[in-house]
Order: sequence, then structure tokens, then C-alpha cells
Amino acid sequence: MIELRNQTSEEIVKELSSTVKKLSDIHTDDRSLMSLCPEGLPSLQNVKEIMSLLWKLMFPELFFERTAIVSRIEYRIGITTERLFELLQEEIVIGLSCRPKRKEKVVIDNYPEAHDLSMKIISFLPELKRLLYTDINAILRKDPAAGNEVEIILCYPSVKAMLHHRFAHLIFSMNIPYLPRIISELAHSHTGIDIHPGATIGEYFAIDHGTGVVIGETCIIGNNVTLYQGVTLGAKSFRYDGNGTPLNIPRHPIIEDNVTIYSNATILGRITIGHDTVIGGNVWVTESLPAYSRVIQGGIRNDIFSYGAGI
Amino acid sequence: MIELRNQTSEEIVKELSSTVKKLSDIHTDDRSLMSLCPEGLPSLQNVKEIMSLLWKLMFPELFFERTAIVSRIEYRIGITTERLFELLQEEIVIGLSCRPKRKEKVVIDNYPEAHDLSMKIISFLPELKRLLYTDINAILRKDPAAGNEVEIILCYPSVKAMLHHRFAHLIFSMNIPYLPRIISELAHSHTGIDIHPGATIGEYFAIDHGTGVVIGETCIIGNNVTLYQGVTLGAKSFRYDGNGTPLNIPRHPIIEDNVTIYSNATILGRITIGHDTVIGGNVWVTESLPAYSRVIQGGIRNDIFSYGAGI
Amino acid sequence: MIELRNQTSEEIVKELSSTVKKLSDIHTDDRSLMSLCPEGLPSLQNVKEIMSLLWKLMFPELFFERTAIVSRIEYRIGITTERLFELLQEEIVIGLSCRPKRKEKVVIDNYPEAHDLSMKIISFLPELKRLLYTDINAILRKDPAAGNEVEIILCYPSVKAMLHHRFAHLIFSMNIPYLPRIISELAHSHTGIDIHPGATIGEYFAIDHGTGVVIGETCIIGNNVTLYQGVTLGAKSFRYDGNGTPLNIPRHPIIEDNVTIYSNATILGRITIGHDTVIGGNVWVTESLPAYSRVIQGGIRNDIFSYGAGI
Amino acid sequence: MIELRNQTSEEIVKELSSTVKKLSDIHTDDRSLMSLCPEGLPSLQNVKEIMSLLWKLMFPELFFERTAIVSRIEYRIGITTERLFELLQEEIVIGLSCRPKRKEKVVIDNYPEAHDLSMKIISFLPELKRLLYTDINAILRKDPAAGNEVEIILCYPSVKAMLHHRFAHLIFSMNIPYLPRIISELAHSHTGIDIHPGATIGEYFAIDHGTGVVIGETCIIGNNVTLYQGVTLGAKSFRYDGNGTPLNIPRHPIIEDNVTIYSNATILGRITIGHDTVIGGNVWVTESLPAYSRVIQGGIRNDIFSYGAGI
Amino acid sequence: MIELRNQTSEEIVKELSSTVKKLSDIHTDDRSLMSLCPEGLPSLQNVKEIMSLLWKLMFPELFFERTAIVSRIEYRIGITTERLFELLQEEIVIGLSCRPKRKEKVVIDNYPEAHDLSMKIISFLPELKRLLYTDINAILRKDPAAGNEVEIILCYPSVKAMLHHRFAHLIFSMNIPYLPRIISELAHSHTGIDIHPGATIGEYFAIDHGTGVVIGETCIIGNNVTLYQGVTLGAKSFRYDGNGTPLNIPRHPIIEDNVTIYSNATILGRITIGHDTVIGGNVWVTESLPAYSRVIQGGIRNDIFSYGAGI
Amino acid sequence: MIELRNQTSEEIVKELSSTVKKLSDIHTDDRSLMSLCPEGLPSLQNVKEIMSLLWKLMFPELFFERTAIVSRIEYRIGITTERLFELLQEEIVIGLSCRPKRKEKVVIDNYPEAHDLSMKIISFLPELKRLLYTDINAILRKDPAAGNEVEIILCYPSVKAMLHHRFAHLIFSMNIPYLPRIISELAHSHTGIDIHPGATIGEYFAIDHGTGVVIGETCIIGNNVTLYQGVTLGAKSFRYDGNGTPLNIPRHPIIEDNVTIYSNATILGRITIGHDTVIGGNVWVTESLPAYSRVIQGGIRNDIFSYGAGI
Repeated sequence: MIELRNQTSEEIVKELSSTVKKLSDIHTDDRSLMSLCPEGLPSLQNVKEIMSLLWKLMFPELFFERTAIVSRIEYRIGITTERLFELLQEEIVIGLSCRPKRKEKVVIDNYPEAHDLSMKIISFLPELKRLLYTDINAILRKDPAAGNEVEIILCYPSVKAMLHHRFAHLIFSMNIPYLPRIISELAHSHTGIDIHPGATIGEYFAIDHGTGVVIGETCIIGNNVTLYQGVTLGAKSFRYDGNGTPLNIPRHPIIEDNVTIYSNATILGRITIGHDTVIGGNVWVTESLPAYSRVIQGGIRNDIFSYGAGI
Repeated sequence: MIELRNQTSEEIVKELSSTVKKLSDIHTDDRSLMSLCPEGLPSLQNVKEIMSLLWKLMFPELFFERTAIVSRIEYRIGITTERLFELLQEEIVIGLSCRPKRKEKVVIDNYPEAHDLSMKIISFLPELKRLLYTDINAILRKDPAAGNEVEIILCYPSVKAMLHHRFAHLIFSMNIPYLPRIISELAHSHTGIDIHPGATIGEYFAIDHGTGVVIGETCIIGNNVTLYQGVTLGAKSFRYDGNGTPLNIPRHPIIEDNVTIYSNATILGRITIGHDTVIGGNVWVTESLPAYSRVIQGGIRNDIFSYGAGI
Repeated sequence: MIELRNQTSEEIVKELSSTVKKLSDIHTDDRSLMSLCPEGLPSLQNVKEIMSLLWKLMFPELFFERTAIVSRIEYRIGITTERLFELLQEEIVIGLSCRPKRKEKVVIDNYPEAHDLSMKIISFLPELKRLLYTDINAILRKDPAAGNEVEIILCYPSVKAMLHHRFAHLIFSMNIPYLPRIISELAHSHTGIDIHPGATIGEYFAIDHGTGVVIGETCIIGNNVTLYQGVTLGAKSFRYDGNGTPLNIPRHPIIEDNVTIYSNATILGRITIGHDTVIGGNVWVTESLPAYSRVIQGGIRNDIFSYGAGI
Repeated sequence: MIELRNQTSEEIVKELSSTVKKLSDIHTDDRSLMSLCPEGLPSLQNVKEIMSLLWKLMFPELFFERTAIVSRIEYRIGITTERLFELLQEEIVIGLSCRPKRKEKVVIDNYPEAHDLSMKIISFLPELKRLLYTDINAILRKDPAAGNEVEIILCYPSVKAMLHHRFAHLIFSMNIPYLPRIISELAHSHTGIDIHPGATIGEYFAIDHGTGVVIGETCIIGNNVTLYQGVTLGAKSFRYDGNGTPLNIPRHPIIEDNVTIYSNATILGRITIGHDTVIGGNVWVTESLPAYSRVIQGGIRNDIFSYGAGI
Repeated sequence: MIELRNQTSEEIVKELSSTVKKLSDIHTDDRSLMSLCPEGLPSLQNVKEIMSLLWKLMFPELFFERTAIVSRIEYRIGITTERLFELLQEEIVIGLSCRPKRKEKVVIDNYPEAHDLSMKIISFLPELKRLLYTDINAILRKDPAAGNEVEIILCYPSVKAMLHHRFAHLIFSMNIPYLPRIISELAHSHTGIDIHPGATIGEYFAIDHGTGVVIGETCIIGNNVTLYQGVTLGAKSFRYDGNGTPLNIPRHPIIEDNVTIYSNATILGRITIGHDTVIGGNVWVTESLPAYSRVIQGGIRNDIFSYGAGI
Repeated sequence: MIELRNQTSEEIVKELSSTVKKLSDIHTDDRSLMSLCPEGLPSLQNVKEIMSLLWKLMFPELFFERTAIVSRIEYRIGITTERLFELLQEEIVIGLSCRPKRKEKVVIDNYPEAHDLSMKIISFLPELKRLLYTDINAILRKDPAAGNEVEIILCYPSVKAMLHHRFAHLIFSMNIPYLPRIISELAHSHTGIDIHPGATIGEYFAIDHGTGVVIGETCIIGNNVTLYQGVTLGAKSFRYDGNGTPLNIPRHPIIEDNVTIYSNATILGRITIGHDTVIGGNVWVTESLPAYSRVIQGGIRNDIFSYGAGI
């Protein structure tokens, strides 16, 4: 059905090869990516594999194959953990030797450090699992439509967002570059929920629907907080130092325990939302609120700030 | 380029194995996932395969391989249908034996029921195809930028959202657990459109752009309705019974035939939007509207509520 | 663990085959997809491969495998370029012979045309790479949180959106059907950013977070423009010709150089936003603005229109 | 565990590229493989796929996957047959345009011929299946150790040898180059049985053990013949024409019906072994034998020429 | 380069489908393969996987991937053993329900039996490993060219032949059909060594080169025996019972301890070769020999019966 | 169709795990494979990949995919050569650090040596290609049935045997362990031709049919020599030193130029077969022969020693 005869291969090759040459010219560039990271570049493929291993370790009953005989799950978890360790170490070595901001190229042996950090991350996994189950239980308690843990893990983007975030946050707190933000962005791409790995989030956290949620780097969120789709926890503006460099100071909200924020609400700046507060949909907040506040859009009846819940 | 010699394998293994042990401890838990579903757990992998088979059955010319000879498509559709039947039956058996809310564990043979339900789903496929073509035709009629059916199937997230929703809704209406919501969430993840499988949607339905759309469980939507990105059809609040359990009563809007709702509009509660109504962008509606209404944001000229169309 | 004995295979086959027959009935339809494109239909699979090859050609250091020896990158780029050429030519031949709007079926040999167009696309790749690096540099300059080029490529959805857009726009400008919109929708699905391939976008363009951004077909955007999540650059309404067919005339905004538009702002119609303007979050603009304008939501303090930045 | 640092990549690349250049020099050669077959070269990979499809078509119950539901086998056989047709046609086109002995390069359109030949081969398949079942039945009757047809198909190299031979012989008789001998050599490699595709073999043919068997091009073998391992049916010598070119005349034995030849016997030249003859192990025969002969090695007792049977 | 336009697809499909119909006619046959084994047919694919798992379990250091960290081999062996158990059980259930010779179809539940047999096979694996190491050590001692165990496992067909044989013999001795002969034939195909699974072979057994070796079903071979290529240990003839059915009585040689048999020698019938005997190349033996015999071809010098050794 | 319920998983796991433990006990063994090669063990998988790369480099037109456009073959050869270099270096490092016979464990850095050896092997490839074409031309000249080079490469086991041998011999001559014999055995398994990597073989070498051919380590074979199936070039016996260790002295035949040896002939010991000699089938030779000899089996007519040719 397809005929390609009317071309002389020689000519095609000749035409293509000039472009090939130009695209290959990466070593001569003064600031090629290789020159940034001469020891090697982060691997998106590896990070994807890391996250896929993590799902298996967190919920082995769901993500290992459904086998005819119930096997010794320890064998599978063992191999998966070893592979995770290996990949973490590989990516951390490369990350450490290629710190984004470091001007000078330091030739040190990163292996001992990478080994220790990887080991610490692995040791954290049982605690990570415990934290994720608090998030799952929060949904179970708050959403009448949620059947049980199995359904929540499989059907709620919030679980994916938090699995990625809690893992990325740990790695972020270890000052390892690249890895945390790649992990966050993978969750963002799949869920539309964009949480900066620097954000500090308490237990029993839940996001419903989630598309469009943005949570900034210096946010501090307490326990038992619930957000709906489109909520922004953002910064108002930057302060700059004398050189015009933005200062990395706390600039995102503090959300205390038991707060609920309905869809498309916008909370901006280093303000504090007091515990047990409820903020209605589409509300715009730029000042701190005391505990037990109820904030709704002007002119809207009191009973509707919970819209969106339970759908 | 990579050297891993400075570690004693024995030590690594020893360090890792305590974590492996902890993560393997799933059988002893009082409420492990396995204890919820002793017959087996739903498989996300299988559901993904189910949906990929469904695309092929709905649009075989587009999603089977482009073969050199035009083969007997029936052979391929036959094998695909059989595989779909097999996977449906497998997941339905497991779903039925693991109903999220059922307290007691009932040991019954689900196979006859699963077999019948799977057969009914398969029999519905030609009708599903017809419905999807109404959605495609709606876009063809309304969007001047849409070239033909081929382009719409390949380029409009609305088609993916509706293929998932119409299929999930059928399964939801059969009271089969897990499967419908997993299917919905897969569409949500790819399109940013979040339609609860319980929602009832008429023919010739279209969503443009779609990111951020949320449609609640008890919505009833007529024929020939069009939504734009960011539209929410939500609930205002829950009513609770004496025990504080939320009542599962109709709580989302009814949208009658020929209604158009522009981007980021929010429609809340069990209200009725009369037929042939147009609601402008960013509008907030919590009261019923009569037929042929035109609602726009205060202070905005009448001719712009159609923004977003056709881009 | 699973028993399927209680079914007679003969019966199942009989039950299924009526559905198989119905689903196979694609050739008899008066307007089947095959009748639209008798030479063959566009292949989503091929387009996905095209984009995956393009990532490798734009950032070879990051997306070819990390090899033990630093190989002659030219070999890999050569093969990748050839494969890209081959796939482009295949899809363009099919696209040209199946123009969405063409009523009559024209039997001409598209190969010479497809060959020339594919060759032009390939020749554009070095320029495409240069343009993408302007986008990357824009983020590097504007976002204090961005470490270096490597991090930006791997972690910012804006890069994916622009890689897809700039490539799709080139193909769109050649009047090749299907391909541009399929490419755009793939980016939309992954990033929540929906840019019509017809939009004209200058250098040093950046989108932060991005979920929910919509940019219309006839937009013209200058250099050094920045958008945040949820921004809409849309049309107000259509004009129709005498037959009720919408006129494809310029209907989306012109954004001049150095403009910043914060999250969820909506700019509608063929208006011009003058250079060096800043538009605050959630603002709704339907009239042209002079250069150096500052627009913020009524009643909101002047210092907060930058919210969302830097998280 | 592995360190590759002590090499400068630049140098390696430089050292390797001279060899790469030399190995790439295939177009300039006066007699490159491409110059022999400018339309394309036979594909070993395709022939392997052809044979794997043929196994499925001959014994579908054994070589299609064991499915949970007994599916309509016709669907699978249909797709397999179509693929076989497609591959045959592709390889025959190439074979015909690249006849090994043809001096002049003839540019004709081989498609109609290849199409017809492929169709004839496909039409022969039911007869091929019948022939193979005669071979299987021969083993069933003669070998007391053979359980049933299933065991014979799975465990007897004779079946593989004959499936390849009977298929190759058909193609050989159509004067199609390459394909027949590639198919024969694949069987030879797996079984140690080397049958030239030109050999004519009757029904109910069996080879036990088989390693080392060689059957020449002009052999004619009747029905119900049995060979053991190491048997050679060869030529004695060539006759040459005036130019010193060997004459392709009948030069291998004729074996009539119901003959049994025990292991390592050697039968040479255009002689005739009369029907119902038995030739003992290690015997060397260069003269014709009348029907009902019994030939054993000198000095060996009469009862042992059947050695090797039934192990 | 390839054009297929000159064919009408409709016609091709029509021509092919008559053959497809004929080839699909497997259920109506009076003696189809399915009618032999209504519960399912043996799977060659599964047996290949069984053998590949067995190699890993016997020599885990060589056949698991060479990992960067030395992992807990027990994890991998655990999963491999479980999978082996599962496959064995599956194939044994099918084998037992489809005994080749059983006339009547017996509907019994084979699972308990298959479970017990599989478990016994698994328990035998450590002993199998011990036996294989005696064979490896025999080569190490006898062949001056053999470097160490690693080289012998990777380079000597004798190891493959014995791994298959010792495993197949165990299964054969349990009276399980199909599996043993499929396993033997796989080794035969790869090595040219054809050992019937019924043969009894002692420890420290070695075969050099091996092509063409045939060892019959009722052979009994002592410890420390060595064979060279082309050796046949066969039967002379069958005895028949009154119905003309061959009697399955001992009919192959007994080879006592410490015997060496050089290449292409032929030993036939139920004779006994006394211990510590040496038989030269190409010798033909049909009578028993006392211990310590030396047999060489007539007229050949005494020092050359060892030919073939050590190449 | 399959039911596995009658087993308690716990019990199965318990029963299996004792075997798992035993099979995992590889580190404690006094002479485990790991203890032989603490730096790592040779990888059969890697050697298979090495050989598959080599086929591509020797005959790129035949073994790279048949592409729609005739691409720059240099790109593919470049990548293939680099990968070959990488694998060679990896296997040579491991081989050198694990010499089979070395008693003491020497900890030296093998990389410089492995690097140089790998580079030398790569540099030899063009010469290897030239040698293989002499072998192909030999068949072309001698076998009237051989069509052209393409057919010979695809259909003659002799080519595979010589590709493996000539490559293995080079590596053998560099004193690299494991690799040469693994490569030889792979060819033996596929062709039944067993050539020791130590054998020295001249140009224009051909083997017809080949099954059962054995060529010993210290053979020296001139130019233009032809063998048929079953030919053995072996040793007569070993000489031992005072400690009973076999002496590795020349012990296999020298075959001078232009010699032909017909099938199943056996040539033993360090004798010399003079040039232009012909040895008939099944002949047994243990003494040197002068040039131009003709040797046939006693009592056989002069014209038949060429049997086997041309079938």
C-alpha cells in the first residue's frame, strides 16, 4: 500500500546528515548539559522505575502479580528493596556530583555519602507506609463515597500525590538535588496536583479531585487537613537581596490542624490559617485567620461552602 | 564510570533485611488489604488492559495495527472481544467477593453472576459505540476547528472521558465495585476531567479543553449539552442521618437538553438548569434556572460568554 | 484459586460472536472511518514514537541511555534522525491523502510532497533546539527555585508543552492535517496545558505550574512572556458567514513582549496587551491594555499579584 | 564493582572509528551483497517467523496459548494465516528479484507472481497437515515407546524435520530461491537431520533419533520408509559438462516403499533399493538391491540389524 | 521500496478464508488432539521455562543477572523455586489427565497427586545439584583441557545433557507422561546427545563432544563411565507378545563402573560390559565383556583407542 | 478450567522453603563458583550478545533490519561496534581475574590489559570479514548447488562454524580464558561441528553438512581444505609427565593445502596429510600420507570416494 521508490537514498542520506552533524554538536558547546554534569546526568527512566518499585513496596498485595499460589511475599519485597537501593544510590551519586547551583566542579568520591543516604531512605519506608495509611484513613473517614482502603489506593489521585510527595520530601530534606522535583513533577503530570517537595505536610491529609491544586515550597500544613480541586497555597511576592537575587525565606501559608479548604480557594503569603477553620470555594485569602473561622464568598449562603464534597 | 567497590555486600544485605522484614509483615495485620479481599484484589494492570481493548473495539480502524493487507477485521475483533470477556469476568468475580462496604465475609460462588454480568457488558458494546459517535458528532457540529471524526477521536480529551465514563457508568449501574471508579480515575488522570461513574449523561455530549471539569455522582445531564474547561457540577452540602452518616441522596444539578456552560462556571446543589440555557464563564449558580436562560458575570458584556470556544 | 468450569465454552463463543459480528461491521457503513481515509488512517502510536525521538534529538545527553563508554553521539543521533524522517513521511503521506475538510477524494501521489515537507521539518530541528533553550533560559532567569538547565528540562511541564507546541506549530504552518493537533493533545494530557498548534509564540516563553492554561489558535505572543496556571487566552465569540459557518478570523489576544499574567487570569477576544504589562491573578480582561499596565483584582493590595511565583 | 575510569572516551572513539569506517564500506565493493540483490535481501528473521506461524497452523491446539475459555480458534488461525501470507509474499518478491544464478539484472514487477505463489502455498496447508499426520501415524505404528500423537509432535525430531521439509519442498518445486534452503537449514540446526529441499519423500515417513542423517537433492523415497540416525543417502560423484560445470542430473538413491535403513548405513549413487528391503546398521551400499532384500554387516548375526530401534 | 497495491484486499480475504476454515476444523475430527487431552494439552513453552528455571537453581551464581550489589540470593532462589513448583504442578495435572496409552477417559481430580509429585521433585533439587557436580568433577579429572567448574558448566554439552537427563529421569520414574521426553528432546536438539529418560546412569558420568550419542531406555550405567561422540548403546531387536505388541523388556546394555567407550563405538543388546573396560573407537560389540577388557578395531595399533580425547 | 484451592498456601511455602534454604547455600561452600571468581563470573548471556553483534558487523546488509530508506549504515555499525567493545572489555576483565588454572588469587587491575585486548579484537574485524569471505568463496567454487554468497551465508552451517571459530581462535591466541570455548560450544550446539578454538585453520576452508565433525586443539590446517560430515581430526593418546599430568603437546593432525576428506573419515595423531590428498568416506588414517594421495575404503570402487558431495 506504500511506495517509497521515488527517492534516491543517497540524496536523502546527504540531506539528513547536515542536520545530524548540527544536532550532534554537544561537546563543543561552552555550556552543554554534559559540562554541567560531567560525571553523568540524572535519568528520568531510573526515577520512573524507582517510583514503580515504591508502589510495590507500599502496597505489595495490590502491585505484585496476583499469583496462583500465595508466595512468600518476603522474596519479592527483598528483591524489590535491593533494586530500589541500587537505583537510589546510582541517582544520588550523580545528583551529588552535579549540584545545580555549585559553580566550581568538585571532584570528590560521593559513594560513601550516597550509600548512607540511600540506606536512610530505605529505613524510612515502613514509616512512609504508616504515613500513607493515615492519608488513606482520612479519606475513608471524610468521603462517604469511599468504599475501603483498596478502593482509595486505586481510585484517589490524592494517594498518588502523597506517595510521591512524602517520598520526595524526605529526599529533599536530605539536600539531594534533582530527584525530589522529578518525583513531584511525575505526580503533577498524572494528577494535576502540584506540591513542591519542600512543603511540610502533617498526617491524615486529603485532597479531593485535585486537578489544579498548587502547594508552595515553604508551606507548613498540620494534621487532618483537607483540600479540594484548584486550591492554591501560594506566595504573594518575593523579597530581593542587594544583588536582586530573590531571598528564599518563608513565603507560603501555614495551615493548622483540622482545616478544610474548598475548591479554587486561593491562600497567599506567609499567613496562618488557624485550626478548625473552613474556607469556602473560590475564596481569596491574604490575611491570617483565627481558629474556628468560617470564610465564604460574599453574598453566598452559608450552607454551600462545602460544594464539591462527595462527588 | 561507576565504582561500587567500597561497600561490603554482607553489610548492605544485613542493613536492608530488617526493612524487608517490616515491609513483608502484611499477613499479621488485623486489617491488611488481603484480609479485606481474601479471594484476591482488583488488578490495576487488568483494568488498563480492559480499557486498551475497548479502544480497539470502538475504533478498530484506528487502533489495530495498520496492516499491509486489509485483513478480516472480524478475526481481530473476535480475539479482542474474547480477551475482554475473560478479563471482565476475572475482575468482576474478585470485585463481587470483596464488596467495599460489606461487613461480613460471604463465601458464595460468584462465577455465574460474574459470567452473566460480563456477557451483558459485552452485549452493550455496539450501543456504546453508537453513543460515542453521538458525542463525536456533537463536537463535529459545534466546533468549527474540528476536521472530521478521525481528528476528534485522536485529539479531543472529551472522547476519552466519555468512552471511559459511558463504560464505567454501565458497570456502576450493575452494582459492581471497584471497576467503575478505577476506570473513571484513569480518564481523570489523562484528561483532567473528573466524572463520577454514577452521573447520568445523555447523547451528544461534549466537553471542550476539559481540564478541571468535575461532575458529581447524582448529576443528570440531558441531550446535547456542552461544557468548557473548569466547570464544576457539584453538591452544596451533605445531609446526615441520626448517626452522623451522610445520606446518599440526590445532591448534584440536573442539566436539561441543549445547555451550554462556559469555562470555570460553578453549578451547585440539586437544582435544575432549564433546557436551552447558556451560562457564561466563571459564573456561580446555586439556584434553578428556567429554560432559555442567559447568565453572565455581572458587568460583563453580553457577547462574550462564549469565550474559550473554538480555540 | 480460580475456577471457570461452570461454563460451556461453546455457549460463550456463541453468545460473544453476535457482538463480534456487529462490531466488525465497519466496511458497510456509509461513513466509516475507512471511507474517510481510504489510503490509511493516522497512527497515534507513530506520533508517540515521533515525539519520543524528538526528545532524544533535542536533549541527547539526557534521553539516550547512559552508556559506560562515552560513545560517538553522532551514530545515535543519525539513526534517530533517519527514523524520525521515515515516520514523519509516513504520517504526512496519510495525512495529506485524508484532509479532514476535503469533500471529494483526490487520488494523487503525495510522496514527493511528503518527502519535501519531512525534509524541511528535519532541517528545522537545530533551530527548534535553539528556541527551546530560550524557553529554558527564561525559566532559569525568572524562577529562583530553578537550579540549572538539567533540572528545568526534567521538572518543568513548560518545557514539555513548548517542545510539543513549537514542533506542532511548524507542522501546522505547513498545512499538514492531524499531526499538529495530536501532538498538542499529547502535551495537554501530560501537562494540563492546552496550546492550539496555530498559536504564534515568541522566544523566552515560560509557563509556571501550568495546569489549566488554554491558549487559542489565533493568539500572537511576543518575546519574554510568562504565564501561570489556569490562564486562559480565549475568544469571546464567533462571527458567522451567510451560511452559518463560523469565520476563521483572528479572535484571540495579542500579547506583546515582556508581559506577565498571573494564575487563573482570563484574557478574551482580539485585544492587545501592551508590552511590559503585568496582569494579576484571577483578573478578567476583555479590553486592550496599553504598555506598562498593572491590572489587579479590585480591592486587592498591590503587592500580591505575583502570587504563585516561585513555589 | 566495575570501574572504567582509566580510559579517555575521546581516544576510544577515535580508535574505534577507523574500524567502523572499514566495516561500513559495503557500497563501494564491486560485488557487495547489496549489488547481488538491489531490491532487498532475504530476511532470516522473517523466515523464522514464517516457520513459527506454520507450527501454529499445523497444530493449533498445541501452539496457541492455552486460554482460560475455549475461544473460537478460527479467529487465531485467521490472523496467523494472513500474517503468513504477508511474510511469504514479501520474501518471495525479494527472492524472485534476486535469483542466485541469474547473471543479468531483470527489472520486472514480481508482485503478481509472488502473490499467486503465496496463495498457492497457503492453499496447500491443509494437505501439508494431512501429510504430517501420516508421518506422525507412521511413528505411532512403528515405535512401541511412542504414546500418542501429542507426544510424537512434541518429542520426535522427525516431525520437525518433516514439517520443514514438506513445506520447503513445496516452495522448492515452485522454483523460489533462498526460502527452501533457509527452511531446511533451520531444521538441520535443531535436529541434526539434513534433508535437501529437492528430495521427494512419500507418505508415512519416519526418522528415529536422526542426528547425522543426510538426504540428497535428487533422492526419491517411497511410502512408509523408516531411517535411523546417521543414515546417508548420498551421491557417488559428479559428471561434468564440457566446461567443467557439474551436471545437475539424478545422482542420489531411489528408495521404494516399506524400506527400513538402520543407523549409520550409507547408500550412495543413483541406485534403487527395492521395496520391503531392510538394510542393517553401518552397512555400505553402492549397488541396487531387489525387493525384499536383507543386508547386514559381514560376520554379524542376522537378528541384530534392528539395533537402535525403540530406544 | 515495496508496493502492494495491485491486489484487491477483498479478494485476498476471500481466497484465504477457505483455507482458514479448513485449518480451523479441529473439533469435529474423530481423533483431534483436543479429544486426546480434553483437560488441556502439554505446553512446550512451559517446559522450556521449567528448564530455564532449573539452570538458575542449579548454578545461581552463573545464571541470575550479575548484580551491582551482591544481593540475598535466597530471595531470587525463593521466587524461582515457587515458579518452578507452580509450572510443574500445572504440567503434571495436565499430563496425568491425558495419559498417552489410557483408553478410557477417567475424570478424577489430579491436583492432590500433582501437588505431591511437584513437591517431591522440588525436594530432590539439592540432590540433583550434588549429582551434577559429580559429573562436572568427572570432566575436571579426565579432561586436561578443562579449566575449572565454571568453564565446564558453560562449555561442555555433557553438563546440559545430564542436567536434562537427571531431571527427566526423576520425573520418568514417577510415571508422569510427556514431561520427561520433552525435556530429553530439548537436550538432544541442543547437544546432539539423545538419552532416553528411562536410562539409569550412575555418578561421575561424562560425555566428550557428544554429537550422535544415543542411550536406550533400559540401559543401566554404573559410576565413573565416560563416552565419546557417536557412541550408541542400543537394542538389537524386539520380542513380541502373541498380539504382535513389542514387549517392553530390558534390551539395552549394562555398563559397569569405570568403563570408557571411544567415539562411534556401537554396543547392542542386553549385554554386560564389565567394570574397568575400555572399548576403542568404531568398535561394534554385541556380546558381553568381562571386567578389565580392552577392545579395539581389528588391525589397529593398541595405543590409539583413546583417539578423540582431549581435543 | 484450573482449580488450585485444595492447598493451604502456608503449608506450601513452608515445604518449599527448606529446599530454598539448601539451594541458597552457595557462599559457605569451600569451593563455590563465587570463590573461584570473586570478581564476577562469565556471562553466557553477554557472549550470546557478542556473537549476535558480530553477525551484524560481518554481514550488515543481511542482519540489520531491512529499512524503508537505505540509511547510513555507518551509524548502525558504529553503535554496534561500541557495544561490542564494551561487552568484550567486560567479559575479558572478568575472565582475566578468574583464570581457570591459577591457584593463587591475584588482585591486579585488569582494565588496562582488557582495554588493549578488546581494542585489538575490534581492529581485527575487517580481516575477520576478509577471511570469512574466503570460506564463502570456497563453498561457491566447490558446491554446484550453492547459488551465491547470500545463500551460503544464510544456509551453510560451515559459515556459522567458521565465524565462531575464527573469532574464538583470535581470542584464544590472546590467552583469554572462557570466552573462546563458550563461543565454540555455541557453534557446536547449532551446527554439530565441534572445532577447538586452538585449532589453526587456513583460508578457503569449507565443511559440507557438518554434523559430527570434530577438530582437535593442536590441528594445523592449510588453505583450501574441505571436510564432510562426521570427519574426526583427533588425538591418539596422551603422554603424561612424571606426576601423571597429561602433556599439552602437539597431538592432532597437520592437513596441508588442497586436501579433501569425505564423510565419517577418521584421522588420528600428529601425522601429516600431504597437500592435494583425497581421503574417502569412512576411511581410518593413523599414519602420515604423502602429497597427492588417494585413500579409499578397501574393496570400494575408485569413483565413489566423493560421495556426499553436492547433496
